[in-house]
Amino acid sequence: MAEKITPRNQDFSQWYQDIVLQAELADYSPVKGCMVIRPNGYAIWENIQKELDKKIKETGHKNAYFPLFIPESFLKKEVDHVEGFAPQCAVITYAGGKDLDEKLVVRPTSETIINAMFAKWIQSYRDLPLLINQWANVVRWEMRTRPFLRTTEFLWQEGHTCHATQSEAETEALKMLRLYKDFCENYMAMPVMAGIKTKTEKFAGADRTYTIEAMLQDRKALQAGTSHHLGQNFSKVFETKFQDQSGNWQYVHQTSWGVSTRLIGALIMTHSDDKGLILPPRLASPHVVFVPILKGTPEDKKLIDACEKLAYELKNPKTTGHLGYNIQCKVDQDTQHTVGWKFHQYELIGIPLRVEFGMRDFEKNQIVIARRDNGSKKTVFLLDATQTIVQELKQMQNDLLEKAKKERQENSFLVDTYEDFKLKLETPGGFLHAHWCEKAECELAIKEDTKATIRCIPLDAADRLTPAVEQGQCVRCKEKSMTRVVFARNY
Amino acid sequence: MAEKITPRNQDFSQWYQDIVLQAELADYSPVKGCMVIRPNGYAIWENIQKELDKKIKETGHKNAYFPLFIPESFLKKEVDHVEGFAPQCAVITYAGGKDLDEKLVVRPTSETIINAMFAKWIQSYRDLPLLINQWANVVRWEMRTRPFLRTTEFLWQEGHTCHATQSEAETEALKMLRLYKDFCENYMAMPVMAGIKTKTEKFAGADRTYTIEAMLQDRKALQAGTSHHLGQNFSKVFETKFQDQSGNWQYVHQTSWGVSTRLIGALIMTHSDDKGLILPPRLASPHVVFVPILKGTPEDKKLIDACEKLAYELKNPKTTGHLGYNIQCKVDQDTQHTVGWKFHQYELIGIPLRVEFGMRDFEKNQIVIARRDNGSKKTVFLLDATQTIVQELKQMQNDLLEKAKKERQENSFLVDTYEDFKLKLETPGGFLHAHWCEKAECELAIKEDTKATIRCIPLDAADRLTPAVEQGQCVRCKEKSMTRVVFARNY
Repeated sequence: MAEKITPRNQDFSQWYQDIVLQAELADYSPVKGCMVIRPNGYAIWENIQKELDKKIKETGHKNAYFPLFIPESFLKKEVDHVEGFAPQCAVITYAGGKDLDEKLVVRPTSETIINAMFAKWIQSYRDLPLLINQWANVVRWEMRTRPFLRTTEFLWQEGHTCHATQSEAETEALKMLRLYKDFCENYMAMPVMAGIKTKTEKFAGADRTYTIEAMLQDRKALQAGTSHHLGQNFSKVFETKFQDQSGNWQYVHQTSWGVSTRLIGALIMTHSDDKGLILPPRLASPHVVFVPILKGTPEDKKLIDACEKLAYELKNPKTTGHLGYNIQCKVDQDTQHTVGWKFHQYELIGIPLRVEFGMRDFEKNQIVIARRDNGSKKTVFLLDATQTIVQELKQMQNDLLEKAKKERQENSFLVDTYEDFKLKLETPGGFLHAHWCEKAECELAIKEDTKATIRCIPLDAADRLTPAVEQGQCVRCKEKSMTRVVFARNY
Repeated sequence: MAEKITPRNQDFSQWYQDIVLQAELADYSPVKGCMVIRPNGYAIWENIQKELDKKIKETGHKNAYFPLFIPESFLKKEVDHVEGFAPQCAVITYAGGKDLDEKLVVRPTSETIINAMFAKWIQSYRDLPLLINQWANVVRWEMRTRPFLRTTEFLWQEGHTCHATQSEAETEALKMLRLYKDFCENYMAMPVMAGIKTKTEKFAGADRTYTIEAMLQDRKALQAGTSHHLGQNFSKVFETKFQDQSGNWQYVHQTSWGVSTRLIGALIMTHSDDKGLILPPRLASPHVVFVPILKGTPEDKKLIDACEKLAYELKNPKTTGHLGYNIQCKVDQDTQHTVGWKFHQYELIGIPLRVEFGMRDFEKNQIVIARRDNGSKKTVFLLDATQTIVQELKQMQNDLLEKAKKERQENSFLVDTYEDFKLKLETPGGFLHAHWCEKAECELAIKEDTKATIRCIPLDAADRLTPAVEQGQCVRCKEKSMTRVVFARNY
């Protein structure tokens, strides 16, 4: 199985597809652009959901559920919004055997239908802030799709909040961006650059869009999550108003923010290798696979028992609680397949640690622990096994992030001429930190010329190569610029 | 707020609607037949999901996700299936700005699209059993809707499994029925009758449909979940085949089973009263609300601190682990509302236990614990508070089930003449255990005459009023019958 994965340096796209299909993360469905998320892929989504949901609730948001269908007239109320989304909509024209009086759009995002409800629920400043989140499927008709990264239907969470003031909405939009960044880095081990989108790239209907941008192994960028300050654009057309403390009616200030199953694609493209999937331990399940070397003799039982004993210890939250998750183990008792086949298989599906345990090890009271990410092997005494496994999981989580950070750093460049811009973009690619005149005209011309877009204007010093304020000239038109922005080709 | 709930004995339907709206469980949406599940209602669904998901996984099933859209031709492959579902379908005719070559149906259930994938994934007996579950939204265009009980879009889980033999599929269908029954009784505190549906009432495309039927407070029946033995009906039209150990190709035997957000409606209609929602502790969150009687003086802090201390103790899984859940508490520190208003409010939204704590109690080192279901109050010493709260939650869970069982028993009748059948059905209503000739003609005539349907042929002695085998005459046509079936009006 694993043998058939196309190497990354030969064909990155094919490598990605091979991993998705062979590790049984997803499959193509008979419905154009829609994938099937298979159990191995869905387990990753469940782990992402579990952790993110906890964080979203800890910050005061409550989950709710709004209708899948949106009356076409609702979508049309916000001018920019309908322009952005109408071309991607799937439309119900008949149902229950009859043509519908008003067509229904399958939600591409839920700002409109949610505002229709918010307008009903909010009367007073006492009802604010209103902090709602929804886990749901959405549909955007896409021309070119790729499993997880861009599919017609995808799963996501969408937060929608209402606030009394602009500054509270701004604080919320940034808070959720930070939450996403923290999740990407500390759970997915994927460094992301937090920044602001240009007007060209912002969400249809937002005043301002914040983004987190990841760099994948082919040095392309991926927008991993967004947080929008919607201002009063939706509240004005849906009459989402509240009476303030002086009794005056005001429109609420809103935000919306979301991440989706696209994160699974980002995870694969950030860490995996030519053998298959590599998962950061915090999002893996199981975390450890025990492969006793079975001979089909009564001795086998000794090996299996010793593995089960270790697995039992590892499951105990007391042993491993400080990791932030309970360790899940699988003990492979199968006698049909060779050990080599098993090793390949577990590498393919990305179990972080493999424990090898043969009769010779048993006699010496030792086991061999192999790490999926760097292939390193350690032989340790049984008595030290639990502690070492916990340590290795921790170290692997950390190393994956550091490795990805290093790769991003090595592929981030200061670029000051258009010639250099085009050269670097071809080889090696990556994030080009360049000056830009802030005109959409230049932005679009660069995109046309080079297929590179402005991913964001970075927020954090750590993501910049130069100070935030730096005199310079637009990389294309040479006009004055006061800050660098980050260009890249992207998914 | 609570004052406005219509009493049950005045108008049961209005009472239900009042609770749904006033306890903010759901709201009507601008999309016909679609509801919005508000945070209070969605929290119940999350609790249901959490427990059911655990049980579904413990029995070896894995979660996956299949497309929302089904090509119209797929639905048409199984003759009974399309006849049953076509009239209820919502249909996408254009998307991405173009008319579609093939119309897409929004899934009313997923047997067809899932079989298209199963046919691809299954080759050998080694691939069986294949045990898959999906949490998803589905759409069935309904003429008359009611929040939770019957909505155009609803949330559910649908299990889909493939087996090598008919008997394995039968075992699976029954296993999941038992799992549902256990969940309804031990988590929802709602007794359900497990049984087989008649041919008229079975799932479109199944060989056999098993059901669990609840009796609500208005003595109507509600189908709370179903488990279908699909036989080879879908595998034959989708070519879902496997090579058996002798190398012969065989069609797989299948099951599907599901429960939905309808369970929330069942929960409300089983336990709640004229003051509002009553929730069994196992599905409530929070479980306890502390209402210190605050005077706006510095003394208040003493009361709040004592409550917080108790809440902290109660949260500790060591104290309360044997309940099967961690106790969640809310300490109400609000000083804007009166204590009376608060009591009403917490009764309305169904928090199982309320702890009252005033300065007089503080001085006496005691608190008052009030139960939501029966209104009973207990004064206990602070030192005994934790233990008593745990005990009361346990007792309440138990009492709710016993009360509902008793009501069902009191409203279950042996009926032997059609005259008595019609009389009992009017007053008091309930489950009528009657003989039936097994002819669809009689079943339909009775439905036409009386609006009562055969809910099921009960499986368990505990749900019957007479032995499973009993000579008798059909309640309508007087033809010979060997067993009683259960008739009721239903939702």
